[in-house]
Amino acid sequence: MALYPELDTPSVLIDLDVMEDNIARMQAVADRAGVRLRPHTKTHKSPWVAGRQAEKGASGVTVAKIGEAEVMADGGIRDILIAYPLYGEYKLRRLRPLLERVKITLSLDNAEVAEGISRLGQETGRKIPVYLEVDTGIHRLGRDPGMETVEVARDLVKLPGIDLIGLITHAGQGHDARNREELIGVARHEGRALLETAEMMRREGIETREISVGSSPTAPFVSEVPGVTEMRPGTYIYNDVMQIDAGVATQEQCAATVLVTVISRPAPDRAVVDGGSKTFSSDAPASYGHGEVGPRRHPGFGMVVGRPDLILQRLNEEHGMMGLADPSMDLKVGDRLRIIPNHVCGMINMHDEVIGVRGSLIERTIPVAGRGKIR
Amino acid sequence: MALYPELDTPSVLIDLDVMEDNIARMQAVADRAGVRLRPHTKTHKSPWVAGRQAEKGASGVTVAKIGEAEVMADGGIRDILIAYPLYGEYKLRRLRPLLERVKITLSLDNAEVAEGISRLGQETGRKIPVYLEVDTGIHRLGRDPGMETVEVARDLVKLPGIDLIGLITHAGQGHDARNREELIGVARHEGRALLETAEMMRREGIETREISVGSSPTAPFVSEVPGVTEMRPGTYIYNDVMQIDAGVATQEQCAATVLVTVISRPAPDRAVVDGGSKTFSSDAPASYGHGEVGPRRHPGFGMVVGRPDLILQRLNEEHGMMGLADPSMDLKVGDRLRIIPNHVCGMINMHDEVIGVRGSLIERTIPVAGRGKIR
Repeated sequence: MALYPELDTPSVLIDLDVMEDNIARMQAVADRAGVRLRPHTKTHKSPWVAGRQAEKGASGVTVAKIGEAEVMADGGIRDILIAYPLYGEYKLRRLRPLLERVKITLSLDNAEVAEGISRLGQETGRKIPVYLEVDTGIHRLGRDPGMETVEVARDLVKLPGIDLIGLITHAGQGHDARNREELIGVARHEGRALLETAEMMRREGIETREISVGSSPTAPFVSEVPGVTEMRPGTYIYNDVMQIDAGVATQEQCAATVLVTVISRPAPDRAVVDGGSKTFSSDAPASYGHGEVGPRRHPGFGMVVGRPDLILQRLNEEHGMMGLADPSMDLKVGDRLRIIPNHVCGMINMHDEVIGVRGSLIERTIPVAGRGKIR
Repeated sequence: MALYPELDTPSVLIDLDVMEDNIARMQAVADRAGVRLRPHTKTHKSPWVAGRQAEKGASGVTVAKIGEAEVMADGGIRDILIAYPLYGEYKLRRLRPLLERVKITLSLDNAEVAEGISRLGQETGRKIPVYLEVDTGIHRLGRDPGMETVEVARDLVKLPGIDLIGLITHAGQGHDARNREELIGVARHEGRALLETAEMMRREGIETREISVGSSPTAPFVSEVPGVTEMRPGTYIYNDVMQIDAGVATQEQCAATVLVTVISRPAPDRAVVDGGSKTFSSDAPASYGHGEVGPRRHPGFGMVVGRPDLILQRLNEEHGMMGLADPSMDLKVGDRLRIIPNHVCGMINMHDEVIGVRGSLIERTIPVAGRGKIR
């Protein structure tokens, strides 16, 4: 019996039972810690899924682009953090109507970006709430915690059209932690660095009220640092091989898989499946984007459910080259396999829709309405 | 004066003058060699661009998916090679109406796939033309040249609903050639291996007429092997860092660039631009998908036009982390840069539309109508 005979391949499956468990588990983490959960929608890019998170207690959503905020507002989400520096007249022009429709919060790390937003605040007669982003180790946006950040804060509080509500960070380098102790160390640093910087700001008379942290690997440890007010994990909704390798998810907690078909067995130790980098994204084993190679355990471009003897070794755009550890194991043209992606956010962004299933039953098509919103 | 002030960023620019030169140059290569040029549309995914190639002499197009064939047929292309093994009832059901609308040729590498296609041929009262794919070194689909392939051909000619018209291959491993001599060696092997295998088939009474090769790096050398009838390069239409590194394109021959804005200067040696893996794809310096790392010369995730002092070192989904070789060089928040992607096919597939320009003038929006057609 073929897997999901109702579907052509490749197709992206979301196991809704697993997704709902993931939502409940992370909400419980947030509730126990007394922290607001504002999930990042980069993973699912779906207002329908965001609605399921809100039902269980999420306080709003996090997005990275104006286009994603528009999609979420259209889908009924009323509290949106655009956690990305919005620079330039085109973006501010699109931001203006959003300010009227929903509660918008922004984040940024420099005065040049803040000045444009402040002007928009003045023009529209409001103080736009902004977070100041701090670099707690990913070396992306933000200055170092401490005086480096306080100096930026001093410039921001002079601007009349913004309200500096707090500090924000993303400790994505948790993926590179070599064990649970290191990961907890990253989580503690993420929160403490912000709290200590906020205290330094307070001593200079810069009062803020929000401390926002977030990444799926560090999220389970948010209660380690009292004083954090908000967390913004995204990947936990579906999980992926990166989360398994970070030690914060099991294979059974991975909700998203790609259903593929074997289209060729050109050699005894090789099978080719009908999904490549255009289906999985090319997010590679050794390149999660955080610099050096992390301590990951699973080889290849994904994990084949129920078939640890198969390794997805190489991807071309439309081809997945799979190595057979044991060529005598059964695998023939037409066989279907389910593959957990390395990085589910990159994978989901390749697709216009995904299929919600419960076990072997197909329940609904879920449009990825926020896919490809690069602006 | 900002680059392209009419556009928000990130935006994908296609320099149409450069594109037209690339079309003319490759058509001249094909014409001189007496070989039909059937460009692969995986790079541009646009019927409009395919039309520009056809105007200059292209004999048709190559696609990988039924959905891409549908888009090209809708866009007026009348001769389409689907160079991908189509397996299963869903795909054959969609193939049927295409057979009535346009000239369709298929490729495959095994009898299991061929049997389904043969049944469709019989049901629709025709012999569907198919190529047999041969592995000339990329180790993707296909058996080795010689008797391995002849054995598959013997099975195919027994099937009543297909017409085995010839042999096809893709020597994508040309990207890993260390110098021009090695690359010419790959191109010679690509053509000769097919011709020798066709001759072996002929001795067994299996007459075929077509020899189809293709990859952008080997394409300029197609005249090295008399007897090739068709070539299918794709990337040459826009070119990218991979083509530069393979020695078959210059930076000036790269038509596609991503226009980005500097959104932060968090450290003297770091700038962050508003394009990451969701804009460029995550096709990485050390991972072109052909196995081992090739002998590439350009570091990073793209080349910054006119700024060799800037290296796009890391990508997160929405962030491009750029290293400054010389922190004293000018680069500030709001500055715009144009970046040539490593792998243009992967980049284009992230976008719903691209912007056709001539120098600094904006000429047209080009929908990427074939984007994301995973089936």
